[in-house]
Amino acid sequence: MKFFINEADEVVNEGIEGLLTNPRLTRLNNFPEVRVVLRKDWDKSKVAIISGGGSGHEPTHAGFVGKGMLTAAVCGDIFASPSVDAVLSAIIATAGDKGCLLVIKNYTGDRLNFGLAAEQAREMGYKVETIIVGDDIALGEETEQRGLAGTLFVHKTAGFLSEEGKSLQEILDQTKKVAQNSYSIGLSLEEGQKFQGKEESRLSESEAELGLGIHGEPGVEKIAVGKADELMETAVEKLQEYTSGTEYALILNNLGSVTPVEMNVLLNSFSKTSLAKKTKLLVGPGSFMTSLNMKGFSLSVLELDKEIKNALLAACEPASWFITEYGESSSIESPKLPETLPFNASENSETRKWIKQISEELVNIKDEINALDEKVGDGDAGSTFASAGKNMLEVIDSLPYAKNSELFISIGRIFSREIGGSSGVLFSLLFTGAGNALKENDDLGKALLSGLDKMKDYGGAKQGERTMIDALQPAFEAIANGDTMAKIAQAARKGADATKEITNTKFGRSSYLSEDSLKNVPDPGAEVVARVFEKLEEIQ
Amino acid sequence: MKFFINEADEVVNEGIEGLLTNPRLTRLNNFPEVRVVLRKDWDKSKVAIISGGGSGHEPTHAGFVGKGMLTAAVCGDIFASPSVDAVLSAIIATAGDKGCLLVIKNYTGDRLNFGLAAEQAREMGYKVETIIVGDDIALGEETEQRGLAGTLFVHKTAGFLSEEGKSLQEILDQTKKVAQNSYSIGLSLEEGQKFQGKEESRLSESEAELGLGIHGEPGVEKIAVGKADELMETAVEKLQEYTSGTEYALILNNLGSVTPVEMNVLLNSFSKTSLAKKTKLLVGPGSFMTSLNMKGFSLSVLELDKEIKNALLAACEPASWFITEYGESSSIESPKLPETLPFNASENSETRKWIKQISEELVNIKDEINALDEKVGDGDAGSTFASAGKNMLEVIDSLPYAKNSELFISIGRIFSREIGGSSGVLFSLLFTGAGNALKENDDLGKALLSGLDKMKDYGGAKQGERTMIDALQPAFEAIANGDTMAKIAQAARKGADATKEITNTKFGRSSYLSEDSLKNVPDPGAEVVARVFEKLEEIQ
Repeated sequence: MKFFINEADEVVNEGIEGLLTNPRLTRLNNFPEVRVVLRKDWDKSKVAIISGGGSGHEPTHAGFVGKGMLTAAVCGDIFASPSVDAVLSAIIATAGDKGCLLVIKNYTGDRLNFGLAAEQAREMGYKVETIIVGDDIALGEETEQRGLAGTLFVHKTAGFLSEEGKSLQEILDQTKKVAQNSYSIGLSLEEGQKFQGKEESRLSESEAELGLGIHGEPGVEKIAVGKADELMETAVEKLQEYTSGTEYALILNNLGSVTPVEMNVLLNSFSKTSLAKKTKLLVGPGSFMTSLNMKGFSLSVLELDKEIKNALLAACEPASWFITEYGESSSIESPKLPETLPFNASENSETRKWIKQISEELVNIKDEINALDEKVGDGDAGSTFASAGKNMLEVIDSLPYAKNSELFISIGRIFSREIGGSSGVLFSLLFTGAGNALKENDDLGKALLSGLDKMKDYGGAKQGERTMIDALQPAFEAIANGDTMAKIAQAARKGADATKEITNTKFGRSSYLSEDSLKNVPDPGAEVVARVFEKLEEIQ
Repeated sequence: MKFFINEADEVVNEGIEGLLTNPRLTRLNNFPEVRVVLRKDWDKSKVAIISGGGSGHEPTHAGFVGKGMLTAAVCGDIFASPSVDAVLSAIIATAGDKGCLLVIKNYTGDRLNFGLAAEQAREMGYKVETIIVGDDIALGEETEQRGLAGTLFVHKTAGFLSEEGKSLQEILDQTKKVAQNSYSIGLSLEEGQKFQGKEESRLSESEAELGLGIHGEPGVEKIAVGKADELMETAVEKLQEYTSGTEYALILNNLGSVTPVEMNVLLNSFSKTSLAKKTKLLVGPGSFMTSLNMKGFSLSVLELDKEIKNALLAACEPASWFITEYGESSSIESPKLPETLPFNASENSETRKWIKQISEELVNIKDEINALDEKVGDGDAGSTFASAGKNMLEVIDSLPYAKNSELFISIGRIFSREIGGSSGVLFSLLFTGAGNALKENDDLGKALLSGLDKMKDYGGAKQGERTMIDALQPAFEAIANGDTMAKIAQAARKGADATKEITNTKFGRSSYLSEDSLKNVPDPGAEVVARVFEKLEEIQ
């Protein structure tokens, strides 16, 4: 497996170094012996909120340092607790008269090292309180519960209360309530892989894990891989007995390498569960507490009251925390789109004759043009133009022939709605553009050139790049010049024939073909254009 | 490969449904035939900013809908442009008197469908401008440049200016400048995999790709996989000729499944490049414009001036956008930690004798305790205690024997700093806690019990769980009772012996062993405690 790292041993330090390019963060200068990341603007006038633990859970912990959340994070090696001295350093560096709160995830190493640092700091005269978070429900109530992403509820609440100037005791009381009411469960398709570990999975292609920790330990249950809806339902069911209240906040946490669109799908799956109706605030979906590149998600819930809601919703500096209200999806009425034929039919027998015969010609030359396209494209150019002709013939009695602007706009609509692929859109751009130009100025040649400009602008091709533009451009210029139809048709033909010599193009159907295969074959689109003008000359 | 989806065909729709649980977003009610996500609070009084394109790039596009960024997003299928009618619906639904701006990434399908919708809307009387973003530098200047994550600079600027009440023309002028000055390059270790596609990679374990798009097309160059620093340097070099200015914003974009810690490592790699010195603002690292689960990153840069800086830094609703200042990492002075032996040496010959003989006993019983631990643990308990004894003997002439509180705190420090593993921390907690209690109240028994409580609190084990607590608890209780040393030693012995019958424990060294292997073997820690008290009885 490939990773974006330098040395496996340096991932933690380099990751922190990266984070420290944020000028609002700094670190103690005995880094990396001691890895303490802290707010640069911290002045010790408020209660310091310190957390930390093993690394490999980014953005936890250092990614949550900032105004309104953590004052400092103490980072250990991958999945290993930081040293007592590191925690003690963080306390001394941040705790002022109001003291500090250590938020500890319930793992033996963290409990011991943070706990001892707290004792030592107290002995030095610092006011220190600790709160141990065990929000994991996978192992049942009676066993020790691990600290998972629910810990973030504690970070956010504590950070908010500190910012509000609350006392250490007030913060402790409130965050204890939050910690006790936070419940989490994880579900994963693949465990996380250590940067220097073996590339093996304990899970087969049909297995997933439920009730997992964030340190690579197996989940409590192996379950069958299922649809997102089923997996989410399984996870939510586990939370059932812990969610008998009325209003909840949810953290939908990406455990490592789930893509944003899958996280959105999971959010939709969640919205189909019973718990969704009680969910009022959503943190995520996003990466909050990961386990290396684990392909999994976790749900953390916290019952809401007014104070907790306030705390969770309050603005804070770390971008890693984001929260929105959560509710049912809604719709607004879709606007009525214009009719394909918005104008009343009107008569101009000459124009009608032209349109009819051109349309018939497009149907007639279908096989011939398809054969040409077989050589230089995907063989369906004739069918596309024939389909356009057929669609035109279907509405031949309903078109506004009396007014060119209306006629062109209508043709544009037909090409937009009824003809597939790029060709339909390109011709629609041509006719819609020409029709709009005719509303301003009755000059047909100029209008067609203006429409052609739209086709070129949006399509990206210019004259000389082996597209139908090579026939359209000279023909429209001839029209704008007031030339006879014979001259116009000659111009189109000359342009179409010239495409036989263009063997190097990056546009359209032929851009993937070799020069040899293009030699002496005209561009089918340009050929159709020439045929149309030749037909017009013939019938006028 | 396993994914969190229901049906591959439904990923786009369900992902959008998930997003719509955010009550600030809504959609047109002909969803999913037409997939238009828009701001619920939109009142058409400002210029509407509309973007969109194929899906599979989440959070682009719908994740950037919200005040200060996009008014609406029009979402196509995975990697496929939305229909002309969908774009037209978005325009009609959001454009008021001030009109709307369509931000189009430079792909043929998007150019054509958004372009035609713009033409049709104009024909209906709407004020519509389009801006085509081609920030990709991989294909060179002369070829068509694809729209990549640099498009977000345009979204953010346009959204900001709209919010400021600027006119369509003003927004167009400014965003054109932004689009023209945005440059992006991508680098990937693995291409993204479609949810229903084959599980094959075009890259070997030693290959990476440089200059890639976001639709699965191969990169312009295959390069060798290297360290993060090398890969980042390669990518930054490509941007060299486009970054001759003085101040830049950078988007460090996760193309799909790179983990947060790797993104931080890449950020650190970036900070070592020449471009870092010119970088003043950082968007990310995070997922902004992904390509399914591609394991890659992209860099997008934009030269800054005062107006652009304002626009990028302005607050906006979508959490998917986040920006910080960018600079060099800093440190503050690490606090001086307390000395291991903070108190002046003082004399109490009785206490000194006890400490000396206990320490010697710990050294003497090393092999015996190790042998015991071989049966029920990892065989090093004797070594750990012997090391503690040895460390005590080294400072035997420097301890503050005259004052129990000072002595215990000193012993706590020695155990914390000099002894490895959980045992060191646990005994440190005991002695530090007891020492602190003695400062308040000179009752030795109570102080030891108070220290033991700290050990239990942080360690998590209770009496009866086959740990040294089983000997410490009764011994300390006897001390608190004012019992003789003989009675104290008997209490400790009884507690230690009782651990022979505890065969079911979830704590400490023996929690992974079978009941059979524990039967009749005392817990080595408890045994050491009993031996120490027996020694004390002997020498008093």
